[in-house]
Amino acid sequence: MDGRPGPPGAQLLAEIREQPQALRGLLEHEDDYARAAATARERGATLVRMVGHGSSDNAASYGVYAFGLLPGWTALRDSISLTVYYGAELDMSGCTVLALSQSGQTPDVVEYARRVRRRGAYVVAVTNDPASELARESDAVLELRAGAEQAVAATKTYSNQVAALGLLAAYGAGRGEAFADDLRSVAADAPVLTRSLETRIGSVAVPFAYAGRMFVVGRGAEFATAREIALKLLETCRIAAEPLTATDLAHGPVAALDSLFPVWAIASDDANLPAVVEAVERAHEAGATIVASGSAAESVPHAQYVLPSPATSSPLLSPLLSILPGQLFAWALARARGLDPDAPRGLSKVTLAR
Amino acid sequence: MDGRPGPPGAQLLAEIREQPQALRGLLEHEDDYARAAATARERGATLVRMVGHGSSDNAASYGVYAFGLLPGWTALRDSISLTVYYGAELDMSGCTVLALSQSGQTPDVVEYARRVRRRGAYVVAVTNDPASELARESDAVLELRAGAEQAVAATKTYSNQVAALGLLAAYGAGRGEAFADDLRSVAADAPVLTRSLETRIGSVAVPFAYAGRMFVVGRGAEFATAREIALKLLETCRIAAEPLTATDLAHGPVAALDSLFPVWAIASDDANLPAVVEAVERAHEAGATIVASGSAAESVPHAQYVLPSPATSSPLLSPLLSILPGQLFAWALARARGLDPDAPRGLSKVTLAR
Repeated sequence: MDGRPGPPGAQLLAEIREQPQALRGLLEHEDDYARAAATARERGATLVRMVGHGSSDNAASYGVYAFGLLPGWTALRDSISLTVYYGAELDMSGCTVLALSQSGQTPDVVEYARRVRRRGAYVVAVTNDPASELARESDAVLELRAGAEQAVAATKTYSNQVAALGLLAAYGAGRGEAFADDLRSVAADAPVLTRSLETRIGSVAVPFAYAGRMFVVGRGAEFATAREIALKLLETCRIAAEPLTATDLAHGPVAALDSLFPVWAIASDDANLPAVVEAVERAHEAGATIVASGSAAESVPHAQYVLPSPATSSPLLSPLLSILPGQLFAWALARARGLDPDAPRGLSKVTLAR
Repeated sequence: MDGRPGPPGAQLLAEIREQPQALRGLLEHEDDYARAAATARERGATLVRMVGHGSSDNAASYGVYAFGLLPGWTALRDSISLTVYYGAELDMSGCTVLALSQSGQTPDVVEYARRVRRRGAYVVAVTNDPASELARESDAVLELRAGAEQAVAATKTYSNQVAALGLLAAYGAGRGEAFADDLRSVAADAPVLTRSLETRIGSVAVPFAYAGRMFVVGRGAEFATAREIALKLLETCRIAAEPLTATDLAHGPVAALDSLFPVWAIASDDANLPAVVEAVERAHEAGATIVASGSAAESVPHAQYVLPSPATSSPLLSPLLSILPGQLFAWALARARGLDPDAPRGLSKVTLAR
């Protein structure tokens, strides 16, 4: 481990900046994606079960949309406890399992992979460590190629998981090469956005120095982004940040809002935008401060803080850019709160919890 | 509407108490469940897609385990936005769709039902209103028979949705009559638990009068309970309460805990208990106050407040009892905070939000 020298947060910031490079690293192994998609098709394994915890599970939320919109396959975030703890024996024929773990060591993800493979699933490990136990228990490995990630909070492994799911889905739809080109454009756009956010994110974050709770709202492909931003805020800033779909907000949680309970809305320019705008209207009526990010951030009414990201050619690309304001906000806010964003209390890089 | 007279919270309390009676009402229509399960089998529609918002979506979390453990069918909480907003055209052959809506009016649930039925899904409405638009758009209706629910926060419609999913799954497995008998036992146990909780819940709730945030932890079949208790706390008590699986907690959120951030653990006596206990150990180390409920509440270490529920013969029955301490705690705490639990600010009984 080559611990980077520097002030608290230097590692996290370095890794946020490395995301475009990490994405290009992944794209050097496009063939692996083409092959895994071809195998899934040949085996008729078009029900996609995704498993993972934390950021990996957040990326899986994106997979639901990537597989649904590109090859038209049903993808679900499967219950690990059903198979691993209750010992249910579901029919796994016709299933591709995507086991997501940065370290490849998450115990119940490894155990899940082992069990479902025995029952006929096509098991693909999506991991940053091709020599891990998870990789050994799988039929194929999609290597994240994000490079070593040392900050405890995942950033580049999260965005590469999102890209990996999108690329595999695109190959499943016979459109892999075009999607890879789109990912290259995103990698080209990211550094400008990152630099411009770095210069202004401190002034956006500081007013939230004493915030205790927050909702992060997204819908569709951006629900993954909402979940991941909420997790960054929880782990690095110790804010009780809860991700909600735009419609969840109206079904109860809106009652909890007031002027000390801010709402972050991820608004991308896709079919879910009206639902997000409607949720924001509701949060504003309840007195909440609004932060808006995403490619349509500027169309969000009542937003006191606007963190736009560039437009993309598809709703499946925007999550790779709309995550950046959240990652940088968490980095800046943790420092404003006197916390070390590189090493949150009580966490370690590899989680071996049940 | 026959508005009940009485102090704030009288409606909610009355409906919490009515749950056993509501459950017996549902069981008078066992034949409908037998028929729907038989049709699903005949049509080979054993991939179960559940949709709903708020409490309905929480009940769907239970459905994942009911269908997985009883007939061994894969059940998933489907994305509504994928079909309704993005217009994805997933293959719906071989699918049973369970559309959950107390009112039967939730617009995007109705629209989802309409679209997937056209594409060949077997669509079953699970609703309290058999004359609703949702019922008309469905192939079959499973009526909740909970009686009119007037408090904004769902209680008896939630528990009847859980029961409905369990009963349908049991009929899918050819074990419907035995499961119905088990539900009758649960309905017989509930009043004693409710009465004993009513006498002591105030003293458990009052220390949380100024709590701003809370995690509610459960796993497996009890994850639905964790989600539903968190929602009751959000909507009636305005606490930022986030549901987490026991393992989610370790993957980041534990970093946010301290002595002012309590954790509620639902511990039932099933295969997930060790994971829940491990999560509680971690929360305790971080200084959090622990509330434990469920049939194994007394095995939870470090719990300052213990709200046990009776043992049940299967992990699929315990959620019908373990929800009671949460509902009553939310009722009592809302009153301790000077809020009206019957009518949370900003909410209405029927949510027509996008």
